[in-house]
Amino acid sequence: MSIDLLKTINSSKELRKLPIELLPQLAKELRKFIIKIVATKEGHLGASLGVVELTIALHYVYNTPKDLLIWDVGHQAYGHKILTGRRDVFETNRQFNGISGFPKREESEFDVFGVGHSSTSISAALGMAIASQLKGDTTKQHIAVIGDASIASGMAFEGLNHAGVTNANLLVILNDNAIGIDPSVGALKQYLTNVKKGTQKQDNIFEALNFDYSGPIDGHDLSQLISELERLKTVQGPKLLHVITKKGKGLKQAEDNQVTYHAPGKFDADTGELATKIIIEQPPKYQDVFGFTIVELAKKNKDIIGITPAMPTGSSLKYMMEEIPERAFDVGIAEQHAVTLAAGMATQGLIPFCNIYSTFLQRAYDQVIHDVALQKLPVIFCLDRSGLVGQDGATHHGVFDLAFLRCIPNIIIFAPRNEIELRNIMYTSQLGKLKQPIAIRYPRGRGVTLDWKQPFNEIIMGTGIPLKKGSEIAVLSIGTISKNCSEAIDKIERKHKISHYDMRFLKPLDEKLLHTICKTHQSIITVEDGSINGGFGTAILEFASQHNYKNTFKLLGIPDEFIEHGTTEELHRECKIDSISIFQTITGLL
Amino acid sequence: MSIDLLKTINSSKELRKLPIELLPQLAKELRKFIIKIVATKEGHLGASLGVVELTIALHYVYNTPKDLLIWDVGHQAYGHKILTGRRDVFETNRQFNGISGFPKREESEFDVFGVGHSSTSISAALGMAIASQLKGDTTKQHIAVIGDASIASGMAFEGLNHAGVTNANLLVILNDNAIGIDPSVGALKQYLTNVKKGTQKQDNIFEALNFDYSGPIDGHDLSQLISELERLKTVQGPKLLHVITKKGKGLKQAEDNQVTYHAPGKFDADTGELATKIIIEQPPKYQDVFGFTIVELAKKNKDIIGITPAMPTGSSLKYMMEEIPERAFDVGIAEQHAVTLAAGMATQGLIPFCNIYSTFLQRAYDQVIHDVALQKLPVIFCLDRSGLVGQDGATHHGVFDLAFLRCIPNIIIFAPRNEIELRNIMYTSQLGKLKQPIAIRYPRGRGVTLDWKQPFNEIIMGTGIPLKKGSEIAVLSIGTISKNCSEAIDKIERKHKISHYDMRFLKPLDEKLLHTICKTHQSIITVEDGSINGGFGTAILEFASQHNYKNTFKLLGIPDEFIEHGTTEELHRECKIDSISIFQTITGLL
Repeated sequence: MSIDLLKTINSSKELRKLPIELLPQLAKELRKFIIKIVATKEGHLGASLGVVELTIALHYVYNTPKDLLIWDVGHQAYGHKILTGRRDVFETNRQFNGISGFPKREESEFDVFGVGHSSTSISAALGMAIASQLKGDTTKQHIAVIGDASIASGMAFEGLNHAGVTNANLLVILNDNAIGIDPSVGALKQYLTNVKKGTQKQDNIFEALNFDYSGPIDGHDLSQLISELERLKTVQGPKLLHVITKKGKGLKQAEDNQVTYHAPGKFDADTGELATKIIIEQPPKYQDVFGFTIVELAKKNKDIIGITPAMPTGSSLKYMMEEIPERAFDVGIAEQHAVTLAAGMATQGLIPFCNIYSTFLQRAYDQVIHDVALQKLPVIFCLDRSGLVGQDGATHHGVFDLAFLRCIPNIIIFAPRNEIELRNIMYTSQLGKLKQPIAIRYPRGRGVTLDWKQPFNEIIMGTGIPLKKGSEIAVLSIGTISKNCSEAIDKIERKHKISHYDMRFLKPLDEKLLHTICKTHQSIITVEDGSINGGFGTAILEFASQHNYKNTFKLLGIPDEFIEHGTTEELHRECKIDSISIFQTITGLL
Repeated sequence: MSIDLLKTINSSKELRKLPIELLPQLAKELRKFIIKIVATKEGHLGASLGVVELTIALHYVYNTPKDLLIWDVGHQAYGHKILTGRRDVFETNRQFNGISGFPKREESEFDVFGVGHSSTSISAALGMAIASQLKGDTTKQHIAVIGDASIASGMAFEGLNHAGVTNANLLVILNDNAIGIDPSVGALKQYLTNVKKGTQKQDNIFEALNFDYSGPIDGHDLSQLISELERLKTVQGPKLLHVITKKGKGLKQAEDNQVTYHAPGKFDADTGELATKIIIEQPPKYQDVFGFTIVELAKKNKDIIGITPAMPTGSSLKYMMEEIPERAFDVGIAEQHAVTLAAGMATQGLIPFCNIYSTFLQRAYDQVIHDVALQKLPVIFCLDRSGLVGQDGATHHGVFDLAFLRCIPNIIIFAPRNEIELRNIMYTSQLGKLKQPIAIRYPRGRGVTLDWKQPFNEIIMGTGIPLKKGSEIAVLSIGTISKNCSEAIDKIERKHKISHYDMRFLKPLDEKLLHTICKTHQSIITVEDGSINGGFGTAILEFASQHNYKNTFKLLGIPDEFIEHGTTEELHRECKIDSISIFQTITGLL
């Protein structure tokens, strides 16, 4: 593949020197380059392909990085990265010690705001635009590029609502491709569709919020984009440009299968065909255990509801949406609404399973406290992507949940050790005995059990499990990280008697078991894939202090820093919760 | 005052039996009754006065409690409470063991959803409406009453956006009085003003979201309200009724001074005059220390910005808004936006003081983690109303902040012991040396220092303060709760040598001081007005465990339950962090 033009562009300054006629060629090369690298190195594909022309036009028209360009979410910013000095390191994208899959301030002066979670760009860009205004800088431009799924989130509305009463020099570019990771939903999406079809008057919702609205225009037409952006440079105050793009543009399979090609894994760069997976029987993904199990339960229990904020595919709630659509809801990127909707349903006797990635539950923290826990409503939170999530990195790790949930009264917190426990806790939660909320946290990726579809068993709330009985040292773990502990203990010489307990419940703690453990072991090691500060190990310290146990405790978990991207294994090692590190901690105490 | 009619109404059933001609008389009596009680017992006044007619009309038209009526925020629900069986206990409103100042499920079957924080009603009501639909109940009505300030919050938009693509039987009543606690702000507010003036076409923003829109109508005209509500009962799907009301209606002073009469304290029920306050010199409110100090600092430091989400009066940012309006922002009920706006400003070298009540920071938890801390942006969070807030009760206590902030990397957490420390930490934070975020938490109410406007002194980050040196037992406190500790220690016989340290910084901990404390005391008592689980005491346990100290620890703080309303003193006693309880804890360890 020839990238003769692309390889001359090491920053936007060089891009801006190109004659406009060469830009379509650059777009072609950029698209090919993205496809080539992502085909082998993996990552997000469709979003970046969709904004190739928009990316070029923005850096062509605006004086980046002096002009401030923010990509909402940021998984569409591969082209931006490649054009701004990161072409040659782009093959390290999302790898341990490589560049981030999202814009990141410390990586480049062109990444003016770190992103990852959606719908932050308008607020951040408005803050920057107000700063310029206060400094008397009237030439600086501030641009937020946000998708139609992200702009429907409440936070984006808050930003628009404020911006509309300022005269800040803010341009919001609505990149409307009618899809987030899954197809967009909601009334605003319907509305935008009507605008595109011309059945909605131009006197529109953004104008109602005081924005100067223009568009919709074709986001793959470079000359139209450039002339419209040039015009908007002279328009004062808040303005919104509605751009229509196609996710996956330029790779037929990606255009045709937008959900699959959002982040397709390895594929053939020329044909677009997904890499043939060697069919070996392997344990299921936890998300699928959730997805299949909720269908299984909901077929029998008519009160069960499934809720996902914009992650039907990622959470595997899609199976229920297909089979029982009237009781499975994708509410869009609206975690706050998702939680309180579930609370409202629970007041009426329904049994809502509210599936939210751990990192995104941070968006609905107040709703968990104020609408669910305070009212003791039996909402079942299924927190997918808990712990270290791998290549998505610092913005996406689900490592704070144990700590931020533990201080909330009335809530049960459970982490299954394997697929069977996930199934059983889901089963247990919907029996009608639950009189308070429960949070069930489980990780990204595959489990450990081939024969996972076992008959259901009820789990006794607040009980831990002894996995190995010894006497010298007790290892206490919670959830799937138990596997690393078991592997570590298996490596210890047999003469040493190491105990291993999977406590499962962070709340309520199995106090009976803990009394036994504290009385029969001198040293106790706790292991969790969550923040040490305030988490599982800390709960054990609180118990011990309360009962005046003076054992020696060693807490393993995520240290007090943000953890970057890499494989989960690499990150476990970095945090010293891989089996070798745990082994070393144990032997250090022997 | 005669309440002959009102005293016959013990539930909405009796209300519905009244001939419509008597309703204006009932409105008159209800209004008088609210004024009479609130005049002496204190509480929220203006909001409930504004919805007297709407409250009567709703219970008259709808078959409550079978039909489900949710009051957003709920401080306007006094009339609702009085008409639904709580007239005779209404004088216990907001008092310890009395009824709650907000609707609360366990208090009455008419309170179908507990509220307190804003903008939850649409989501909750939609959840209920979907539940009815699934159960095949086509007659049940679901009504959310939400103010124009609350509907502008992102969460409300998320609810509208979802409701608009359902055919759920949901009625949203927009109670538009152009004010929250302070006057409403934002583009949506401007838009609603235009609708009221008739300068905005009826093809409006709510219709764009697929709602059947009607109004605006006069919310004090009972017959118009009743006939419109009757009509709406027959309209299918999501619908919005725009009602114009006047906050404080019926009490001239309350109409004329809507901010003051939101919660005016004691006043004369007949004349409306505020109770004459005996002018004695007393320490300032912490909010005023913040409010005056930010003005003082911002006059010298042109980079300082003040941000409040809808609490200019409550936070006292209003002083800066008056004196330096171009750098002081009320962004409306939009905590998420407020935090990320501050983050955007901080990237450009501004110094944003983002003032958010502790309990409302829960609404912006993800933004603190993802937009501020992860990027190490020096945003200064001033968390007013931390700890137990008194009569607002369970929904409003700021008791989780220490725990939920402590697990976040990069953030400094500080609690001033008095006014002077609050001033000094504000001063210290804006010197330009801060390279990371800081959260400064301080309580509701008055401080302890008459002569509080001292010259500024820089505080060394991460240092605690020895207040009293002893050797037997060390009491470690954080922030203003130190006062209770000092009082307790003063009561201990002089022969006992009790140490007292105010640690001030939860993060970073003063490890040097802690080593000394742990080495020189056998027993350590920690005291905080925050959740014990995961909070300050726990941080000390983590430190001790890490360094293998085997002292005896006793942790005092908020237990693992939601604390109800009452005076702060009553609640401190309940949580055993009043001076007497602390005294008892100390003597128990002697």
